[in-house]
Amino acid sequence: MVVLRSIIGDELRSRRLVQGRTLRDVSGAARVSLGYLSEVERGQKEASSELLAAICGALDVSLSDVLRSVSDKMARDEQLPRTPVA
Amino acid sequence: MVVLRSIIGDELRSRRLVQGRTLRDVSGAARVSLGYLSEVERGQKEASSELLAAICGALDVSLSDVLRSVSDKMARDEQLPRTPVA
Repeated sequence: MVVLRSIIGDELRSRRLVQGRTLRDVSGAARVSLGYLSEVERGQKEASSELLAAICGALDVSLSDVLRSVSDKMARDEQLPRTPVA
Repeated sequence: MVVLRSIIGDELRSRRLVQGRTLRDVSGAARVSLGYLSEVERGQKEASSELLAAICGALDVSLSDVLRSVSDKMARDEQLPRTPVA
């Protein structure tokens, strides 16, 4: 099972990279540590609601839009078979 | 600003109530404490990815569907003016 924080992390990372921005830039704008943002992006740490909002603010994307993308990705994951198909 | 965990909590609570189920029933099925589920529903505690998945499993709803509803509610909140309109 793919956990939610991994999908959120992937989504935040891809949005940052599309903007051609560095971890340093976005973490500074969001006022979170670079290490924390890096861990969130890699799905290693749960982002609190406030910090998720701050990261989205730093990326100038709406949290609802990020959640929509995350929901879509999770829906695709939920459709996958749980065991390999022969 | 409405924080994400409050919207998630409201959504989980409304889905439980629609099913006519108690905190005790759902917390037992999700293997989380009743107090924890209650705090999550009231937006007082962040649910980890794993526990959010367990609660959705106990409610027999998909996490992607819950996130879709949460995204929609958050989008409506983001449209609201930040200051009262005279």
